[in-house]
Amino acid sequence: MHENHFGDRLNAAIRKKQTPLVVGLDPRIANLPPQLRNLNAAEAIETFCKSIIDVVASKVPAVKPQSAFFEQLGPEGVTALCNVTHYAREKGLVVIMDAKRGDIGSTAAAYAAAFLDRSESAPWRCDCLTVNPYLGDDSLTPFVDVGNEHGSGIFVLAKTSNPGGTLFQERNFGSTDDHPQQTLFEAVSDHIQSLAAANVGQSGYGSVGAVVGATWPEQLVELRRRMPNAIFLVPGFGAQGGSAADVGGGLDEQGLGAVINSSRGIIFAYEKEQFAAATSWQHAVELATDQAIDAIASETNAGRLRG
Amino acid sequence: MHENHFGDRLNAAIRKKQTPLVVGLDPRIANLPPQLRNLNAAEAIETFCKSIIDVVASKVPAVKPQSAFFEQLGPEGVTALCNVTHYAREKGLVVIMDAKRGDIGSTAAAYAAAFLDRSESAPWRCDCLTVNPYLGDDSLTPFVDVGNEHGSGIFVLAKTSNPGGTLFQERNFGSTDDHPQQTLFEAVSDHIQSLAAANVGQSGYGSVGAVVGATWPEQLVELRRRMPNAIFLVPGFGAQGGSAADVGGGLDEQGLGAVINSSRGIIFAYEKEQFAAATSWQHAVELATDQAIDAIASETNAGRLRG
Repeated sequence: MHENHFGDRLNAAIRKKQTPLVVGLDPRIANLPPQLRNLNAAEAIETFCKSIIDVVASKVPAVKPQSAFFEQLGPEGVTALCNVTHYAREKGLVVIMDAKRGDIGSTAAAYAAAFLDRSESAPWRCDCLTVNPYLGDDSLTPFVDVGNEHGSGIFVLAKTSNPGGTLFQERNFGSTDDHPQQTLFEAVSDHIQSLAAANVGQSGYGSVGAVVGATWPEQLVELRRRMPNAIFLVPGFGAQGGSAADVGGGLDEQGLGAVINSSRGIIFAYEKEQFAAATSWQHAVELATDQAIDAIASETNAGRLRG
Repeated sequence: MHENHFGDRLNAAIRKKQTPLVVGLDPRIANLPPQLRNLNAAEAIETFCKSIIDVVASKVPAVKPQSAFFEQLGPEGVTALCNVTHYAREKGLVVIMDAKRGDIGSTAAAYAAAFLDRSESAPWRCDCLTVNPYLGDDSLTPFVDVGNEHGSGIFVLAKTSNPGGTLFQERNFGSTDDHPQQTLFEAVSDHIQSLAAANVGQSGYGSVGAVVGATWPEQLVELRRRMPNAIFLVPGFGAQGGSAADVGGGLDEQGLGAVINSSRGIIFAYEKEQFAAATSWQHAVELATDQAIDAIASETNAGRLRG
């Protein structure tokens, strides 16, 4: 096992910051604070994200850059993404690259080498990457292998937070000799659990986790039981409608085993009336972060992290 | 309907070049011709891909850059990808960006704007993008909408060419009031067909197509019937094991309705003994391209394109 096992590192970071809250870096140009709008777009999103990192680095275990909003600006945006990623690491944050990659084995190996190689000479050096399971087991193996080699990890999409996620994910597979009747997301979850169980760290979790949306609270509880060794990445908290109570099912009894992502609700807090008293957009980020941390602590097992 | 309907444009390009062969640009560093190995990596892959485009631009309708091999080099590699994309367009080729993106609706909209906006001010200006269906209908809609607005399109993964693609894609959903018993890839295919049928161009095909691997020839025939309005992108021909006869089932009676991708078998032809007589690695690319075009023409309906 790698001395910097990803599951252990993430749980240690959660314990240290006493919260599972992760701040999502989704720099939508249209929502950027007016102060940044005179910069060129790539410069604006880089400055925006670095300022957010400055505010939250002491408060949360990780940030989750959403690649789409950087790729939208072409190569300049991708350069900004890389700079933001490195800046977050320098500030001691775990970096969850939300790029939802997935391809056949030999190509997946290139994505894995791209994002999960943490050597100093590697370009991205992320701590983990979100991955799509549609292409099956041999499309996940290269990510698992590179992750084990470099102490990085993946979060595999199981149940996504969007309404349309039900279309295929909630359809039921009939029973076979090999499997009982189960939904697609349950079948994917069982595979994630088997990958997580194959490389469990000292914290009891593997380096392969699952994306399970906060918008499906009952499923979160059921999937927590189904994948006891998989750390959850829970999107959909805040702007997408999941409440602090809703996300609680993703956490274990110690308040570990999951990270809860909030993006818009925190990074664009300056737009909200409730933070109108903030002295700057960064101050609004700080207030919104504190509020989210407190809400999660008071309504879930995350409160136990405060010991 | 957009005056430059993607399905019509692609079929017209196939007709003009009299072949459905597409050359996949998968610049694996380890396989680059020795002549390029003294350049820095990003420069080497850009030079390599542009040289291939020079050779094949008069012969094939489209190229398919595989984003992973560029992303592997970080922002410099992504800049190379963008330059290669623009170069291919200048040379009159349709550009199929193989990046297999997919995310929830609001983020999918950013990916769609990134890759499928063909305005001169847009960064990527691709003709189409490969997309992963796991996140469901609302994750595909933004790509369809941007495609319809800009005359671009998508290929949605239905049945992938890798062995592990069977793990989830071939599992059977039980019958429900809304659906008969069907596999996941059949359910995805039915959805693709409904999207394709909603925007059929003069060629009889929509701007939403399907990825169906050449490594499953019987399924290719069955899926051709199942998705009469979806253009197919058929990977797996050549190095992955699909023969020219195997890919035939993807084409309609006129030899239209599908593009057949070959990557390694063409771009690294210089490594193969059968092309040892080539005077340069570019000459090997030319010979391998001609051979693939001829094999497809003689063993499938593509021969009818030669009129």
